[in-house]
Amino acid sequence: MRRKLIVVSNRGPVTFSRDSDGRRVAGRGGGGLAGALRGLTEENDVVWIASAMSDEDREVAREGASVCEGYELRLIAHDAGVYEQYYGEISNGALWFLQHYLWGLASEPDLGPAFHAAWQGYVAANRAFADAVAGELERMPEADVSFHDYHLYLAPRFVRERCPRASLSHFLHIPWVQPDYWRVLPTAVGRAIHEGLAANDTVGFHSERWRRSFLESCEAFGVESPATFVAPIGIDADEFDVLAESEAVAAEEAHIVARRPELLVVRVDRTDPSKNIVRGFRAFALLLERHPELAGRVGMLALLDPSRQHVSVYAEYRAAVEREARVVNERFGRPGWEPVDLEVADNFPQAVAAYKQYDVLLVNAVYDGMNLVAKEGPIANRRDGVLVLSENAGAFDELGEWALGVNPFDLEEQAEALHEALTMPAAERRRRAEAIAGWVRGHGIDEWTATLLAELDRHTSTITSP
Amino acid sequence: MRRKLIVVSNRGPVTFSRDSDGRRVAGRGGGGLAGALRGLTEENDVVWIASAMSDEDREVAREGASVCEGYELRLIAHDAGVYEQYYGEISNGALWFLQHYLWGLASEPDLGPAFHAAWQGYVAANRAFADAVAGELERMPEADVSFHDYHLYLAPRFVRERCPRASLSHFLHIPWVQPDYWRVLPTAVGRAIHEGLAANDTVGFHSERWRRSFLESCEAFGVESPATFVAPIGIDADEFDVLAESEAVAAEEAHIVARRPELLVVRVDRTDPSKNIVRGFRAFALLLERHPELAGRVGMLALLDPSRQHVSVYAEYRAAVEREARVVNERFGRPGWEPVDLEVADNFPQAVAAYKQYDVLLVNAVYDGMNLVAKEGPIANRRDGVLVLSENAGAFDELGEWALGVNPFDLEEQAEALHEALTMPAAERRRRAEAIAGWVRGHGIDEWTATLLAELDRHTSTITSP
Repeated sequence: MRRKLIVVSNRGPVTFSRDSDGRRVAGRGGGGLAGALRGLTEENDVVWIASAMSDEDREVAREGASVCEGYELRLIAHDAGVYEQYYGEISNGALWFLQHYLWGLASEPDLGPAFHAAWQGYVAANRAFADAVAGELERMPEADVSFHDYHLYLAPRFVRERCPRASLSHFLHIPWVQPDYWRVLPTAVGRAIHEGLAANDTVGFHSERWRRSFLESCEAFGVESPATFVAPIGIDADEFDVLAESEAVAAEEAHIVARRPELLVVRVDRTDPSKNIVRGFRAFALLLERHPELAGRVGMLALLDPSRQHVSVYAEYRAAVEREARVVNERFGRPGWEPVDLEVADNFPQAVAAYKQYDVLLVNAVYDGMNLVAKEGPIANRRDGVLVLSENAGAFDELGEWALGVNPFDLEEQAEALHEALTMPAAERRRRAEAIAGWVRGHGIDEWTATLLAELDRHTSTITSP
Repeated sequence: MRRKLIVVSNRGPVTFSRDSDGRRVAGRGGGGLAGALRGLTEENDVVWIASAMSDEDREVAREGASVCEGYELRLIAHDAGVYEQYYGEISNGALWFLQHYLWGLASEPDLGPAFHAAWQGYVAANRAFADAVAGELERMPEADVSFHDYHLYLAPRFVRERCPRASLSHFLHIPWVQPDYWRVLPTAVGRAIHEGLAANDTVGFHSERWRRSFLESCEAFGVESPATFVAPIGIDADEFDVLAESEAVAAEEAHIVARRPELLVVRVDRTDPSKNIVRGFRAFALLLERHPELAGRVGMLALLDPSRQHVSVYAEYRAAVEREARVVNERFGRPGWEPVDLEVADNFPQAVAAYKQYDVLLVNAVYDGMNLVAKEGPIANRRDGVLVLSENAGAFDELGEWALGVNPFDLEEQAEALHEALTMPAAERRRRAEAIAGWVRGHGIDEWTATLLAELDRHTSTITSP
């Protein structure tokens, strides 16, 4: 029996535009989350509620629900000013920084009138999502609701007020920080976020660490926690295998093979301050300083997807990344050898080609809810490459045993880990690489979606019974 | 019976110099901590171990123990380079920022070779302190040892290794942050700090909040916590009463009275980023914006003791403070009314005079172990002034009930609290002011020192018994 499911995320799985003949066409929506959730639509009757992103999306929103391949899509056309407050200022301008410990509290944040006004936009957008969900629940009261991520903290409570018996679940894809840091927000805002989440029957996280911090911060805010669970998200390894053998990837791989040094360290990231790219370059420089025997033999290929470049913090961070790469190259480079090869582009086939070619994959995020690069890379890699992995990435829970774990703030430890990885005996490299690939293949995206649904079943009865 | 006590703090109660006739003279040591501990010397046989600060201190150190008024002083002459690493780079350059959540983790800290080298200096200085303590314990094995603050995290363990049965206690005067933030340090460093403190029989804090975070971080590092206690430090109200009636204060007060507006908001701080001075000015500006009826009637007097101006972060912070004061004055000032009166000077009589004159005392620290301004002000004040107090100051535990509590990041809340304070009915102002003064007088410095000693007695037996 197919289950009725309402999936709620800021970005939908498709976004609409008009082609040159004026016909409506659906393109793949941006963001990794929608891709991960797409699997839910295959075995369930899904209504997907998301924000309208394009002008054509707004047109779709005005027409009401749109039937896509096997599911219904309901788009919400927010007022443009409200959307900027909700998405740009609160979700990505405040909550993202908060939930990755990126604020230096002496000067950031400055919670003045602009923040308080933007918060009203976040409330309004969440209310719009909740109204849409409640409308769907009137039509099919037996449906389960699956909310996703930090854009939608308040919506569950607004739904609960209208539909006391609804079956509500939320999944958090980014880290959860400890109570002191949550208390940075205005008290009423922090409490509203916790009360919003607590209106769910169950809340899920990628890591036990984030789950535990959530329980602590609920206690600090005096909010009774709902049931919680841990379900680390996986990837679709089969899909990845096909991609890795594609012509687009082969073409990119040929370019990399033609210019790669003997030993190749790869990193693949968005240019986000949470990804710790500058410290990664500094650690690589320290490796070169400590190990002159590596000169000319090792290179770092950094493939960076430019992120949110209209936001000044992000533009400045990208500039700092580019500056640091130049510093390393000027200090250590010589004719015929450029230690850091920095490519800022949105080019996924190139990333997969680099995955295949790395000897070491560096994932040193400051904090990261999961980090899928650490799972994609080992699936695609063909050289028994070693994973150097931040202890603050959710993926460390699963893969830490076979990776070389590093403190992302400690340059010495990262330099040492790179050296250990580059000089590791072949048998040891293979043992670790196979173990990681085996784990990732054995715990794919289907397991994650199955857990999400099972947790909904396990916990809904506690609230829906009279 | 007088107790034998070894007090250990980085700064001693006196520092030596030569007068114009070449005779050695003892002057009062800097820092508030030594003053607070001086009371311990009155009723106990005290040996005080501290760092040599001046050239003459180094001379004293070479001569061995020096007998001061009623206690012995043993000064440690650190190598100058080691002292800079221990004091400048680790204690104040890293631990102070860490323990007040002042790092923006995207770019700070950068734990490279300089940090790791400096850590060795911190280890060496702590070992020198431990050697001095162990030497004294050989001479008088029955003495209790009282360590103070964040400069000396490792010394207790070094002492314990040499003197397994020693009675060791540590008191922390700054906040303790939650485990995620402690984990920013290199893993071995974070563990060494926790193991160092855990070698004490008992560890004390100003606030239950810091104590609880300590228990959490011990658990995160897998270190068994020693016994812990909370003892909020008080002030010597009698000494303060005398000071408040002194001629020096009266002269300063006359200056303030001559120029003060109808309503006076006062803040007294070091120019330290943890004190949140810039946001305080912004909140005051927001008050003026929202309440034009206050124009010309209210002023903020900010008395700031310049702190660590040879350190660039501190020099930059002072510049930001001065810039923000100008911004507020240029925006709101008019002939005859300058909203912000900023005085950067080390002038304690002026601070006490301002305490007497305030209608509102603003203490909005980002984080603060205790904050004694919040206790000194209400003792000296003559106008039933209202205390606006950061929820992140240790003093909030004791005084929050009668103060107007604020989130130090929330400018709107601070502006509203200032307005509420300025418009509070006289009877309510009096009730709160009297309650705070009564609490501070009833819980003075003597109670704190008594608790310190009682906790030593209560817990030492657990380790000293065979």
